Amino acid sequence: MNSNKLDGTKFRIIPLGGLGEVGKNMMAYEYGDNLLVVDAGLMFPDNDMLGIDYIIPDFQYLLANRQKVRGIVVTHGHEDHTGAIKHLLDQIQAPIYTTPLTRGLLEVKLSRGGQLGQSRLNTVRAGDTVQIGPFQVEFFHVCHSIPDGVGLGITTPAGLVVHTGDYKFDHTPVDNWPTDYAKLAEFAGRGVLALLADSTNADKPGWTPSERVIDAAFDQVFREAPGRIIVASFASLISRMQQVANAALNNGRRLAFAGSSMVENARIARKLGYLDIPDDLQVSLEQALRMSPKEVALMTTGTQGEPTSILGRLSTGTNRQFDILPGDTIVLSSHPIPGNEEGVNRTINRLFRRGANVIYESIAPVHVSGHARQEEMKLLLHLVKPKYFIPIHGELRHLRQHAALARQVGVPQENIAVVENGQVVEIQNGKMHIAERIPGGYVFVDGSGVGEIGPSVVREREILARDGFVLVNLILDRATCRLVEEPEIITRGFVHTPEADELFDATRRMVSQAVDCSSNGRMQQDLVETLKSFFYTKTKRRPMVFVTLSRA
Amino acid sequence: MNSNKLDGTKFRIIPLGGLGEVGKNMMAYEYGDNLLVVDAGLMFPDNDMLGIDYIIPDFQYLLANRQKVRGIVVTHGHEDHTGAIKHLLDQIQAPIYTTPLTRGLLEVKLSRGGQLGQSRLNTVRAGDTVQIGPFQVEFFHVCHSIPDGVGLGITTPAGLVVHTGDYKFDHTPVDNWPTDYAKLAEFAGRGVLALLADSTNADKPGWTPSERVIDAAFDQVFREAPGRIIVASFASLISRMQQVANAALNNGRRLAFAGSSMVENARIARKLGYLDIPDDLQVSLEQALRMSPKEVALMTTGTQGEPTSILGRLSTGTNRQFDILPGDTIVLSSHPIPGNEEGVNRTINRLFRRGANVIYESIAPVHVSGHARQEEMKLLLHLVKPKYFIPIHGELRHLRQHAALARQVGVPQENIAVVENGQVVEIQNGKMHIAERIPGGYVFVDGSGVGEIGPSVVREREILARDGFVLVNLILDRATCRLVEEPEIITRGFVHTPEADELFDATRRMVSQAVDCSSNGRMQQDLVETLKSFFYTKTKRRPMVFVTLSRA
Repeated sequence: MNSNKLDGTKFRIIPLGGLGEVGKNMMAYEYGDNLLVVDAGLMFPDNDMLGIDYIIPDFQYLLANRQKVRGIVVTHGHEDHTGAIKHLLDQIQAPIYTTPLTRGLLEVKLSRGGQLGQSRLNTVRAGDTVQIGPFQVEFFHVCHSIPDGVGLGITTPAGLVVHTGDYKFDHTPVDNWPTDYAKLAEFAGRGVLALLADSTNADKPGWTPSERVIDAAFDQVFREAPGRIIVASFASLISRMQQVANAALNNGRRLAFAGSSMVENARIARKLGYLDIPDDLQVSLEQALRMSPKEVALMTTGTQGEPTSILGRLSTGTNRQFDILPGDTIVLSSHPIPGNEEGVNRTINRLFRRGANVIYESIAPVHVSGHARQEEMKLLLHLVKPKYFIPIHGELRHLRQHAALARQVGVPQENIAVVENGQVVEIQNGKMHIAERIPGGYVFVDGSGVGEIGPSVVREREILARDGFVLVNLILDRATCRLVEEPEIITRGFVHTPEADELFDATRRMVSQAVDCSSNGRMQQDLVETLKSFFYTKTKRRPMVFVTLSRA
Repeated sequence: MNSNKLDGTKFRIIPLGGLGEVGKNMMAYEYGDNLLVVDAGLMFPDNDMLGIDYIIPDFQYLLANRQKVRGIVVTHGHEDHTGAIKHLLDQIQAPIYTTPLTRGLLEVKLSRGGQLGQSRLNTVRAGDTVQIGPFQVEFFHVCHSIPDGVGLGITTPAGLVVHTGDYKFDHTPVDNWPTDYAKLAEFAGRGVLALLADSTNADKPGWTPSERVIDAAFDQVFREAPGRIIVASFASLISRMQQVANAALNNGRRLAFAGSSMVENARIARKLGYLDIPDDLQVSLEQALRMSPKEVALMTTGTQGEPTSILGRLSTGTNRQFDILPGDTIVLSSHPIPGNEEGVNRTINRLFRRGANVIYESIAPVHVSGHARQEEMKLLLHLVKPKYFIPIHGELRHLRQHAALARQVGVPQENIAVVENGQVVEIQNGKMHIAERIPGGYVFVDGSGVGEIGPSVVREREILARDGFVLVNLILDRATCRLVEEPEIITRGFVHTPEADELFDATRRMVSQAVDCSSNGRMQQDLVETLKSFFYTKTKRRPMVFVTLSRA
């Protein structure tokens, strides 16, 4: 019997993303010399991460153990679960396992970076079981705001672990494929060592409404709209595309998709059978723009207030192919990601200003969340009956709230681990405990660089963003230490220069007097300090100050 | 009969703030040579108005007509209605009319700027009527999230105008003083020419819950909290202070206020009789910190995620007087102002991380809005029965939605004016029409400067915030046009310098070769362009680039 030996091996749960922050979900499971990676997402930066394009998980731990990585499982096709896979594949060659739609969406991304050829992609379907190293992975269907999502039952030598991915319990999903309750109950029958479950909506009471509630709202909008209808949503919300197509069909309108990601995703989803659009329902954008407004519906992206999206450009009148027409009805079928509220509201106001009627979440039920709420979370816990519970996918406040729900349904406090990214949890001899911390922070991606922007650069950008900078360039006579020319002043982001001539005249006078060659090596530094306090006194602002010095 | 003559004079409604944006509410009413100003608020900047402290209305129109200003009426004591009064008084000396609490809070602000002495403050009470030039102003009580708020019935020669200020129809307000329904009905009996009403919650269905619902939630928190309780709210939410005091009294805890604005506002409200706190209930912060955690409740500010507020500093462990203790219960009795969601969530997560339990709006009903929702708005319209309707206080989307509600209750479309700041509305001979636009934008206040920061400076800050800057300082030999020294490079916010040595070595080599004195006057400009495309090629970023040039 070697069961004792197996039990004694450490089973490690290694959260690399998605715990304590939303949006860059990534998890690794380790047993002996084997690592299984689940998802690798990106997140968009907070408003104060200035100039950063996006953020990916810090997977140093995987790089240090790259020979142990047996596979990468992807639960569904959203960016926050797939966006960092291309960066991972740059460094680690491991087979990928996904369902058909997820694979289709991922292939688009990988082919853009020229990585599709070398990638080892394997198609799995809900109900399949795959052996990946010592991990036997059972894929089970979950409802989410994208079709073909799966959760995982991972049988390890240490026991059975259930990992939900993003899920909800929609009884009437658009594709009529509910979450696999029976499988969850079957897992419970076998005995579940640990459950790791989506916490996104843990502070929302009740039950997330079914996607179906949107149908009635769409139908009303499509019936009453006096002109064109433009529905904005995420490019990956395939089920929303289906609902818009249904509403168009029922109300005698043709449907066109606008924007490359939306067009491409719709094409793949149709090809793979996840989107049912009759051929004569769909028209090209060019055709749609030539038709009478009452006869068309457009679908596009830009629900997060992104200025460069089609909806963003429509709101500022800078879209290339078409403009808002008075009488257009715009539907934002979406919810702002935290931090985007202001930009979204501004876009809505601008669209109103251009003569459109805008319908958004608080006006009519044109969007529902793809994530379970509190009552669904309790149902999951009762179905799965885990020994240990680890809330995942959420900010710390969501994880804490999810833990409170678990206690309410009877999971003992000591069997719950609320951890953040980088905090390893170990199970050994059937006992869970908190282990060491590994790097679990951000990696910034900016322009073409990955990770070369650190917090210090962002901090510099913050100061520049607040008060700008002033540079004073001095040319001194080598012999007399007198200024050869008037000091040159370069400033940006500090004061409105035409109105600040007086300030800079005073600065020049002040500098001329303050030049003191006797201080020698410290002159530049002294001048910087003098200028800093001068500017603060005059303006109550603290620009960055630089002095350059040449001797002629 | 001179009624024809009077009718022929233009009555002008001049929105200077609060229409199309939230937060800097200001309105002027003009009849002949007379102007009545209602409120003058500030707003906090959007996330992309980098480095701006706050924003006030552009009141150029009033400055150009300063001799016509007969008075300034302030409806209630919130910043978004009072914050720009000090700037207005810098330029226009006019008597101010406010209720006692509003006056008390305003006096604190004015005395800080040394303006209290010259200000002509007049106390009015709900029910009073005051003649201000040709305007007979009747003050009537409205419920809001601060006591002593008033709406205005303004009898002008053109007719009766009702201006609500911020209001809601709370049947059980904390101070037991409901909105004056009878007065509104009485106005209707006299015939109301125009209604201007608060639109803040126009996209929220139903009826805003009574402030009373908070009592039960507070009571449960106070009963169950294992240690200290820290309630965070706005310093001007006097009724919330009363509710916290009641909960403390009912649950055997003493109450201390922390933070100067909260302490000062509580002092004034108590002195003026708007806050009922028994002497032995309130203790100083110092006393509270010496007591057993179970015996105290603290009340403080910082609900908007402001890093420098007490709650913000507690969340980062940088508060001077006290720290979070494990077991503390923190209540955020507030709702994030749009744009602050991210900062608020971050603060909540940090407080959890420091061991506190955090209770916020979505966890328990610890906050309600101070503004009417859709059903209340309809009630108001039915009570007041105005001929013309102008929605105020809200973003454009709220104003449009409020207009839709007015149409639903029977106001004809042509009798509704949805306008933004600076768009004058005229009523002449009993007919409303849209008149000219006047300046109605922002004035930025940054440091000690008012208005000297324009959009161009903010735009510079944006570029600096995104990609930073690079400055190259060259010293050339006057005769040979050779570089006398290695080019000096100063950069911030662009790349992480230790890792970018290679980039800047290449930059130096490139610059040395590119120096070309034959181009003469264009050399600097050419170098800037060359460097810009060099940096973009290498990094896909676009920093600001500067070249300074000296000849030795």
